[in-house]
Amino acid sequence: MYLGAIEAGGTKFVCAVGDASGKILATERIATETPEITMEKVIKFFMNFKIEALGIATFGPVDLDPESGTYGTITSTPKQGWANYPLLKTMKKKLSLPVGITTDVNGAALGELYRGAGKGLNGCLYLTVGTGIGGGAISEGHVLQGMSHPEMGHILLRRHPNDQEFEGICPYHKDCLEGLASGPALQARWGKPARALPSDHSAWEIEADYLAQALMQYVLIVSPKRIILGGGVMKQAQLFPLIREKLRLYLNNYVAFPELNADIDAYVVPPALGDNAGITGALILAKQSLVK
Amino acid sequence: MYLGAIEAGGTKFVCAVGDASGKILATERIATETPEITMEKVIKFFMNFKIEALGIATFGPVDLDPESGTYGTITSTPKQGWANYPLLKTMKKKLSLPVGITTDVNGAALGELYRGAGKGLNGCLYLTVGTGIGGGAISEGHVLQGMSHPEMGHILLRRHPNDQEFEGICPYHKDCLEGLASGPALQARWGKPARALPSDHSAWEIEADYLAQALMQYVLIVSPKRIILGGGVMKQAQLFPLIREKLRLYLNNYVAFPELNADIDAYVVPPALGDNAGITGALILAKQSLVK
Ligand SMILES: Nc1ncnc2c1ncn2[C@@H]1O[C@H](COP(=O)(O)OP(=O)(O)O)[C@@H](O)[C@H]1O
Ligand SMILES: Nc1ncnc2c1ncn2[C@@H]1O[C@H](COP(=O)(O)OP(=O)(O)O)[C@@H](O)[C@H]1O
Ligand SMILES: [Zn+2]
Ligand SMILES: [Zn+2]
Repeated sequence: MYLGAIEAGGTKFVCAVGDASGKILATERIATETPEITMEKVIKFFMNFKIEALGIATFGPVDLDPESGTYGTITSTPKQGWANYPLLKTMKKKLSLPVGITTDVNGAALGELYRGAGKGLNGCLYLTVGTGIGGGAISEGHVLQGMSHPEMGHILLRRHPNDQEFEGICPYHKDCLEGLASGPALQARWGKPARALPSDHSAWEIEADYLAQALMQYVLIVSPKRIILGGGVMKQAQLFPLIREKLRLYLNNYVAFPELNADIDAYVVPPALGDNAGITGALILAKQSLVK
Repeated sequence: MYLGAIEAGGTKFVCAVGDASGKILATERIATETPEITMEKVIKFFMNFKIEALGIATFGPVDLDPESGTYGTITSTPKQGWANYPLLKTMKKKLSLPVGITTDVNGAALGELYRGAGKGLNGCLYLTVGTGIGGGAISEGHVLQGMSHPEMGHILLRRHPNDQEFEGICPYHKDCLEGLASGPALQARWGKPARALPSDHSAWEIEADYLAQALMQYVLIVSPKRIILGGGVMKQAQLFPLIREKLRLYLNNYVAFPELNADIDAYVVPPALGDNAGITGALILAKQSLVK
């Protein structure tokens, strides 16, 4: 049985065909232009295969309320032509197949949970720290979803004592997590690209503090079974031990689980699937959409 | 059909018998002493009725991982005799019935969702602001649960500009939400019981700020369909409009849902069941335990 998967991003659509075991058999990268141009190529790609279902992990915000009339529609986005684009409806109509849809980070969470760094658990939280900061969570097999999907990149933080001047770059909140700790925020704060900051630069201690504060809130609010930190900024591997240590200091033995103490190295972890988490999750979604 | 319900608290156990529609037919309040003394009376109460299942909404922390060997056990508590007490196991053995268990605030969330202020929705978040601060959330019918149940009363906040001196009273985190905004925190901060502060006291503007910050984090992380604020401190009804206004300012039109804008009065609301939310939720849990 063949299944289709799309990871829809702001710069490219990754399309893939795989089997039910998660093995990927063919992929194609299609640039994100207007929906007319991009979607025609996407549909053409899938026409070459006899797939039985499709899963989509997309940039957002996207309407994920199954009871909504605009379920599966990209809601607001500055990307030309994509605001109010009915992504799910279009693919269902063109392919006449069951199609599942979720956010890119929910997709990555699904992929990592069932085939990556979360294997064996029934839940996890995936956070990407890149151009933006976003997260998805799974609790007892259920992808967390409410009024909207989570927007956990925009939570409020306490300012680090050595970072009182920088305003933050979030257009909505200035110094929310994304406004202080995303790749572009680091660039604005330090005057050079994040990747150009040496690994012993004082930027990383501040960055780890902000991410540890975010993890503190996530642990207390959704209590994930594991936290997976991906995205470009997390390529700075020195962040992991710093974040773990600071998270322990913030928690101060509240929630006295081994995961947050002796076993914390296995609790706050990098992705196991690298850049394939999202597309792997989309493939899982395709399979799940067959059962529903 | 009769169902049993327990709301287990630090000062009293409320026991009730009701029917499947949620109607309560008999209740008894039993003081929380040692487990030996209290549980004998609790069991005796239920022996008088032919109940078919029992639901328990209990103080915590409590082990709610169904796969754990200590599922349904109170874990750590300063309450004499209750640390490591197998509450679920005991009731199952004594009554030989299906028994469901969750936290007190999850119970209140269930009660309010299905029979109170959340009626018609498939999820909500319930926060109690009393002696402590605690919350429970339901997402698409699923009670949020991970490594542990949520402990969302202990999240970190930004200090209000007019509240820089007070240390906070949380034994773990000092100035976390509970350390700044619980009833005892208000008493420590202002030198008199919270209920004795006049409704135009400057304490309430600060209190509303802290609660609005907490709601900002909950909205961004779990995106509840409605937020219900209960507990003794929320009897100060003037807090509601202040919290709603401040939450809107913090969000600043991010997540542009009507619930957070024109309809915010129906989004951040007091409980409809008053002090009966927990016991009503426990009764729902009893019913659910029959299906499982
Ligand atoms: N090795 C690195 N170290 C630090 N920052 C990096 C590194 N690689 C990429 N980044 C930053 O991550 C951001 C891109 O994130 P990425 O997750 O790769 O893509 P996106 O978020 O756009 O999907 C950029 O702001 C870039 O500066
Ligand atoms: N009307 C009121 N106004 C302000 N605070 C109140 C009021 N009533 C009770 N409180 C405070 O609420 C706390 C008790 O919370 P409550 O929810 O009633 O019980 P508990 O949290 O112990 O279950 C006390 O700290 C008390 O000072
Ligand atoms: Zn923001
Ligand atoms: Zn605390």
